[in-house]
Amino acid sequence: MKTAIYLDNNATTPLAPFLKKILIKKMEDWGNPSSINQTGREPKKIIREARQNLAKLLKVSSLELIFTSGGSEANNLALQGVFFSQVLPQLLDKTNSDKNVRNRFIISSVEHPSVFKTAEYLKKFGLKLDILPVNKDGQINLDQLKPLLGTDVAMLSIMYANNETGHIFPINKISNMVKDCGALLHCDAVQAFGKVPLNLKKLGADLVSFSSHKIYSLKGSGLLYVKKGVNINSLIQGGGQERFRRAGTENTLSIASFGLMAEHMLDSKIISEYFLKMKTLRDFMEEEILKNISNSKIIGKDFLRLPNTSNILFSNLNGESMLMSLDLKNIALSTGSACSSGSSEASKVLKAMGYCDNQARSSLRISLGWQTSKQDIVLFVKELISITKYLNTL
Amino acid sequence: MKTAIYLDNNATTPLAPFLKKILIKKMEDWGNPSSINQTGREPKKIIREARQNLAKLLKVSSLELIFTSGGSEANNLALQGVFFSQVLPQLLDKTNSDKNVRNRFIISSVEHPSVFKTAEYLKKFGLKLDILPVNKDGQINLDQLKPLLGTDVAMLSIMYANNETGHIFPINKISNMVKDCGALLHCDAVQAFGKVPLNLKKLGADLVSFSSHKIYSLKGSGLLYVKKGVNINSLIQGGGQERFRRAGTENTLSIASFGLMAEHMLDSKIISEYFLKMKTLRDFMEEEILKNISNSKIIGKDFLRLPNTSNILFSNLNGESMLMSLDLKNIALSTGSACSSGSSEASKVLKAMGYCDNQARSSLRISLGWQTSKQDIVLFVKELISITKYLNTL
Repeated sequence: MKTAIYLDNNATTPLAPFLKKILIKKMEDWGNPSSINQTGREPKKIIREARQNLAKLLKVSSLELIFTSGGSEANNLALQGVFFSQVLPQLLDKTNSDKNVRNRFIISSVEHPSVFKTAEYLKKFGLKLDILPVNKDGQINLDQLKPLLGTDVAMLSIMYANNETGHIFPINKISNMVKDCGALLHCDAVQAFGKVPLNLKKLGADLVSFSSHKIYSLKGSGLLYVKKGVNINSLIQGGGQERFRRAGTENTLSIASFGLMAEHMLDSKIISEYFLKMKTLRDFMEEEILKNISNSKIIGKDFLRLPNTSNILFSNLNGESMLMSLDLKNIALSTGSACSSGSSEASKVLKAMGYCDNQARSSLRISLGWQTSKQDIVLFVKELISITKYLNTL
Repeated sequence: MKTAIYLDNNATTPLAPFLKKILIKKMEDWGNPSSINQTGREPKKIIREARQNLAKLLKVSSLELIFTSGGSEANNLALQGVFFSQVLPQLLDKTNSDKNVRNRFIISSVEHPSVFKTAEYLKKFGLKLDILPVNKDGQINLDQLKPLLGTDVAMLSIMYANNETGHIFPINKISNMVKDCGALLHCDAVQAFGKVPLNLKKLGADLVSFSSHKIYSLKGSGLLYVKKGVNINSLIQGGGQERFRRAGTENTLSIASFGLMAEHMLDSKIISEYFLKMKTLRDFMEEEILKNISNSKIIGKDFLRLPNTSNILFSNLNGESMLMSLDLKNIALSTGSACSSGSSEASKVLKAMGYCDNQARSSLRISLGWQTSKQDIVLFVKELISITKYLNTL
């Protein structure tokens, strides 16, 4: 790949160099982990060790972890798993009056599409959905949440940190509020993992989602933490894998990479070192941009954010033009818009935060990685200054 | 891996040596296929080419193919996708009388757990399920199917070939019968792919499932063919991947391997050569076993079977003991039982075919692969003869 400077680490991350060597060896362990003959032994061990490392890192029991094919599946499993096990049976029971039914979900207005669209989808089958607004600084007003928490709420799904702005939500406080109404709390921690220390025992969520490819591992695996005692339906039915909670032959190679990266992060200093490194560079970058590019504005700059993420508005400039110009200089980043089908539309997250279509189209999302260097940032800022100057003359 | 002789190719297959080299290179293409910056270009191309190769091989349009995380997900997507798009909305509509509802699925009694258990699961939400029996030779009686095909049938799901016995079902004939009643036909072709030539245009099924790791590719990807015009709900909601039919960042590496193997099979001679090679060796093996091991019996020997699969009953011997003894000699195969959770129970497939628990426990499934050699078979038969002799003396 020609890309010299990669600043799109919230989209995906490069495979860690130390992993590649190990994974090439592990390609030999192609056996089916469910086989009782000897070809199943090493693959089974790989999965067991990966689960143990992730459990240790997240401070939970390995029995509480379900491997999935990725973060989107984990989010779907959480929402659909609760809906189909707890909500739909009530709705199909014709003796139930609507008043006694726990048929409501609450999500924030800036959830990832795999949460947002899943919740919208379940409305077809009778789910009631409340969407909690977020202000221009990316903040939830907890006073708005309080009156929504009735006994008809089955579940809340609030992300740990937003993928486009990096804003961190107060999951702990929300968890305390939710407990009283008896609803479950799901937290999409896909973007937070590897960027801030996570302790699920203290977080207070009942279900938490993760993805392997956001932490320098292979694509193709994710994880859902399901607190002991919480029952959800499987999304994929069939074989007895994952203690009958997720059928299908395990993606051993991707799970191996996921577990090895968890093992790497077990050193308690690692995450705080990466945190500090990324935050220092990100803050330096933001200062340089604000100083040198007039009419630039960091979204929710003074609020709690991931250390690596910066979402910047450039008034009167088009994000996509900036992205394309930077791409020609081998600098990769992303516009605010989640563009997964090739066609670009203005970021739904920024629009949900109250920015108009034009503003939402004038933003860039810059997301640093563990591998980002000071030189990367210096070069990027220099190119960005020159590109915005040029685009402003057009 | 120490295993010298691998005869469990229906469980999973070794990664093709020619693929390994290419995949090591492709590990560098870690970008997100949805990124519009240059890191997304190569991954996007990998997925496009894989889809094109699979479409060409299966003789369908690439728009009709949905990549999934594996065969189990593909089967779940087919059954749940039809149920949640077409059946459940009718059941929730309280103005509908039960008589006008298309709420019935038909499956065979020997479907893979990812079909069988999914259908059983959907009964919770109002699905009516008919299970079509299979006789001791693995055959469906089509006269028994006919009266079941009323206007209340939404879908049939019948596998192309059984994973434990290799028996091939008459999908074409079934397709013709189904057309008249207006139901959809799903076919789980996971075990058939790579063993017999498949032409989906001629097969007559509306939905067909495949898996990458049964054809010498990486684990972690599968495929569902959905005939143009057939609408199903997504199983995993979220981003716009797979034309909004399957959300989640694509598992580029596994999809690459899947597509490369499809490309390999595009040479029209390949499958027929492998077919002939496996069938010759399998038939030789069966003859040797029947000749030398008294009380051995091939299940449904004289009926249409996959060329690589043999399910053999050894009266009064225990399949698991034979498996363990062979395992010590570095020969890997499997008992009839699908044992995906570590605990072994008698094969549900053989029991569904009318064999008693004891008989079902006395079987071995031997599944050859492209890589199986005559020497493998000669050595295996020699060891098997000596082991059965020994076990008979106990």
